[in-house]
Amino acid sequence: MDKILRIDVGAPGSPKATVEPLGSYAGFGGRAMTTAVVANEVPADCHPLGPENKLVIAPGLMSGSAASSSGRISMGCKSPLTGGIKEANSGGTGAQALGRLGYAAVIIEGARKGDDLYQVLINAQGVTISTVNEYRMLPNYDLAEKIKAKYGDHVTMISIGTAGEMRMSNSTIAVTDVEFRPTRHAGRGGVGAVMGSKGVKLLVVDPEGTKICQPAKPEAFKEANRKFVEGLKAHAVTGQGLPAYGTNVLTNVLNEAGGYPTYNFREGRYKHAADISGEAQAELEVKRGGLATHGCHRGCAIQCSGTFVDKDGNYVTKQPEYETVWAHGGNCGIHDLDSIAKLDFLDDHYGLDTIEMGVTIGVAMEAGVVPFGDAEGAIKLVHEVGQGTPMGRILGAGAATTARCFGLERAPVVKGQAMPAYDPRAVKGIGVTYATSTMGADHTAGYAVATNILKVGGDVDPLKPQNQAELSRNLQVATAALDATGYCLFVAFAILDQPETFQAMVDSINAMYGLSMTAADVVALGQKVLKMEREFNAKAGFTKAHDRLPRYFTREPLSPHNVTFDVPEEELDSVFNF
Amino acid sequence: MDKILRIDVGAPGSPKATVEPLGSYAGFGGRAMTTAVVANEVPADCHPLGPENKLVIAPGLMSGSAASSSGRISMGCKSPLTGGIKEANSGGTGAQALGRLGYAAVIIEGARKGDDLYQVLINAQGVTISTVNEYRMLPNYDLAEKIKAKYGDHVTMISIGTAGEMRMSNSTIAVTDVEFRPTRHAGRGGVGAVMGSKGVKLLVVDPEGTKICQPAKPEAFKEANRKFVEGLKAHAVTGQGLPAYGTNVLTNVLNEAGGYPTYNFREGRYKHAADISGEAQAELEVKRGGLATHGCHRGCAIQCSGTFVDKDGNYVTKQPEYETVWAHGGNCGIHDLDSIAKLDFLDDHYGLDTIEMGVTIGVAMEAGVVPFGDAEGAIKLVHEVGQGTPMGRILGAGAATTARCFGLERAPVVKGQAMPAYDPRAVKGIGVTYATSTMGADHTAGYAVATNILKVGGDVDPLKPQNQAELSRNLQVATAALDATGYCLFVAFAILDQPETFQAMVDSINAMYGLSMTAADVVALGQKVLKMEREFNAKAGFTKAHDRLPRYFTREPLSPHNVTFDVPEEELDSVFNF
Repeated sequence: MDKILRIDVGAPGSPKATVEPLGSYAGFGGRAMTTAVVANEVPADCHPLGPENKLVIAPGLMSGSAASSSGRISMGCKSPLTGGIKEANSGGTGAQALGRLGYAAVIIEGARKGDDLYQVLINAQGVTISTVNEYRMLPNYDLAEKIKAKYGDHVTMISIGTAGEMRMSNSTIAVTDVEFRPTRHAGRGGVGAVMGSKGVKLLVVDPEGTKICQPAKPEAFKEANRKFVEGLKAHAVTGQGLPAYGTNVLTNVLNEAGGYPTYNFREGRYKHAADISGEAQAELEVKRGGLATHGCHRGCAIQCSGTFVDKDGNYVTKQPEYETVWAHGGNCGIHDLDSIAKLDFLDDHYGLDTIEMGVTIGVAMEAGVVPFGDAEGAIKLVHEVGQGTPMGRILGAGAATTARCFGLERAPVVKGQAMPAYDPRAVKGIGVTYATSTMGADHTAGYAVATNILKVGGDVDPLKPQNQAELSRNLQVATAALDATGYCLFVAFAILDQPETFQAMVDSINAMYGLSMTAADVVALGQKVLKMEREFNAKAGFTKAHDRLPRYFTREPLSPHNVTFDVPEEELDSVFNF
Repeated sequence: MDKILRIDVGAPGSPKATVEPLGSYAGFGGRAMTTAVVANEVPADCHPLGPENKLVIAPGLMSGSAASSSGRISMGCKSPLTGGIKEANSGGTGAQALGRLGYAAVIIEGARKGDDLYQVLINAQGVTISTVNEYRMLPNYDLAEKIKAKYGDHVTMISIGTAGEMRMSNSTIAVTDVEFRPTRHAGRGGVGAVMGSKGVKLLVVDPEGTKICQPAKPEAFKEANRKFVEGLKAHAVTGQGLPAYGTNVLTNVLNEAGGYPTYNFREGRYKHAADISGEAQAELEVKRGGLATHGCHRGCAIQCSGTFVDKDGNYVTKQPEYETVWAHGGNCGIHDLDSIAKLDFLDDHYGLDTIEMGVTIGVAMEAGVVPFGDAEGAIKLVHEVGQGTPMGRILGAGAATTARCFGLERAPVVKGQAMPAYDPRAVKGIGVTYATSTMGADHTAGYAVATNILKVGGDVDPLKPQNQAELSRNLQVATAALDATGYCLFVAFAILDQPETFQAMVDSINAMYGLSMTAADVVALGQKVLKMEREFNAKAGFTKAHDRLPRYFTREPLSPHNVTFDVPEEELDSVFNF
């Protein structure tokens, strides 16, 4: 990966592609790359949908190599949802394809002219941009069919659905998986709207004729990667829980812990949780002939995904994630896995973040648009979003805007972004991450649930305010570094608990690039990324007033533990004290 | 005015009224009062629709006295539209009624229980709170009929329409005029939603049995007031232009100056401006048997209003203001005074700010919801807002939210509030006020148009960036002081140009209260108010990044002068350097 591809959609005549060397971006990958480019090149005060914003797509440093579980791809920009810097990352086959083609980043920039839609084809021969107005308002699955028919299923499609075309604040960028299904999404923060604002409907990335990225030190790499995989297999979460049940293994765990937000964050435990748990889901998948264990890209040692089929064995969607099952299920009082799977499919189809969409529907239910528990109503609402009806325009703008339109206080958001599936009152470490992350409420930015609930990487009482800021800080730093590598965040379970697995990961990177990074260097990289992001956000107008949960989380106690969010503000303000 | 009335809507059992002495709020009136109470009592980080916010209603210092043109009443809170502190003020008979009853402020506070609607009756006998669910979703004119029938037309009704009940970010608090019509509104910033969030549908203020507020020095007061009125009559704007044509006298002036924003701020001159000018409007009013000159409250020496009747002589609405005619007219490509009058009526009826509503429709037209120039379409949209359809929920949330829902950059807003009828590129002084005001884009916060265009109070070239920051600063300080007095902002034309009229105003206040304020004291008061507001906003998360116009105003040149907004950012940041 030694080059950057720029697509200037405002070039005279028609969009133009140029390839340039890495220059000052050498050494950056994934989130470090997207953050560096956005921080350097995008004016912090610009409008996210205006000509000055840029969309940066960057595989991780290890993507395209044989490193296990390193298929993450980052999408960065100024976020239409939060107004701050954004990195959303995705699995699927895109990181590997771009990595093998040698592109450390694709930067889509400039002022769109007219309303033509474009396709960017990237292959070993170069880059070809073509007008594809025939794909206008085509949802992702339909688009995938057309692209597969045209280019085969060995390529990767990176696309926006109708939500991205309509420049909705909730809109994703989809990445196809190994079956060429658009099931993997850079979900959060409305990155799809930025792609839509540039008029780019899709990238087709064809790695044919390329080779896997070669390590600088092949033997050392092979050995390090072997140990790394061993470590993943040995850990209970990455070796057993995730492969068997997927992320949805968390439903029963969080429900038991009383940190499972239900009815728009009114209660912390859901009486029907067992019906939609990972265990129930895996059993149903297997019984119907789906798959309970499946990887989103080749070379994954964890295989947390699966395939959800209907009662007749027909494909519905990939195995819905815990966050999705919660957002559309428990949070909305819906406990029917088939409806949840349908909602998951529709989100992927239209290009919508399942967390933002589910939380938005929860807010709409609080507003009385449809009742809590109304699965058919929820499905109808997602169709409205995908079709851009007036109601869909409200909901497609996200939970914060939906609450504004309906005059409600109770929007569970930070910096305009919906909270994920952990109530911050009963899992206070993740509350600190929600409050302070540069990304808005985001569990992946510093997954304190690991230590609060799963007791990975230590044990910090989830119900007490003590030590949560330190926990969140350390995890945010580590995550920012990890997000640069292309390694999946799920490796964190193993590397937090097993020092030798962490070392194997560092050794893999060193062997790949001929470096001699230490653990301290990893921390320094994470801190550097976070500092760039904080500085961008400060210039965009964020202050410590934005590093807060909505006030009602400090006022309304959550059952069953009767707790509020009580981490002192001074501690929140200490998270970035490095 | 020696007491404060507090209505605690969350009191045990039912809402409770308590009367207390002024205490530390002694000496404050109007905006100084609302700002002091909000800054002292409302947590800056609270949700505007949450229990911690308060609505403060305060007549000006001179309200209830015989001081001419002193009938302004201020409504303050944390704004649902901007998220910052808000003072919106209104004419009508409310300030005088409350002043005569001795109330320097009514503070509506606490956590609403259930969804009952309340009426607060304030008269010489005391305060009575009653449940009025029968008025639910009753628009203002219909409500006024019922209240008039019940209490007579000598009382004042202060009410919210359906928009306020639905807690829309664009929602006003209406104040009845001398004909008991709900034509006067505290329009900006969604103050109606805060009243709605407290469940208070209306206040009925009955001054029967009270006397006009007596000055400390009756003879000095009488003499000062006489000179003051003389000054108002002598000035061309307050003595001739406003009485003859109302505020809409500005249409031709601004259009000629090339600062009249049309088609959602795309151009600076409107070819049909003459059709909707104040001259055309006054001629039509008189021809049909309406009124071209009329005061919104008793004792006004300016009488800038009028009565608009249809072709059969039936009342339609009060004379639409320049801002309204522009927002619904020129900005939307509509040049039919009857349609504009109908829109003005509907805004008053549902309780909507005409500026925010017109600018929002302009944004919706840019989004293609209805075409520019479609008057029937615009009328239909306002009905949708008043009825709370999904489209109405979008538009009722204001121009910024509408742009967000439709994925548009071009929302002419600052701090989430729509710009009024002066393009900041061609009237740069008002651009500085829009950018830096504590209130969001607000012409009344520092009306640099006076000096840029009307050459009142000096002459600063509207097209050049020089000296605009100083102009705006001085006007913002003066306005903050004036807004405390209850005097109408329109007296500013006379007091800026005529030192003896300014002195007569100061003398009037001194004679009223037995003070010996100087001009310097007036400046100090204005600065104090602004500092309280800035501090509140800083705590709420506002930084200099929020003291900016949307970037496209610095990028897109405005015809006919081909100018962008080019006041340097350092100058914007110098506005509050006192």
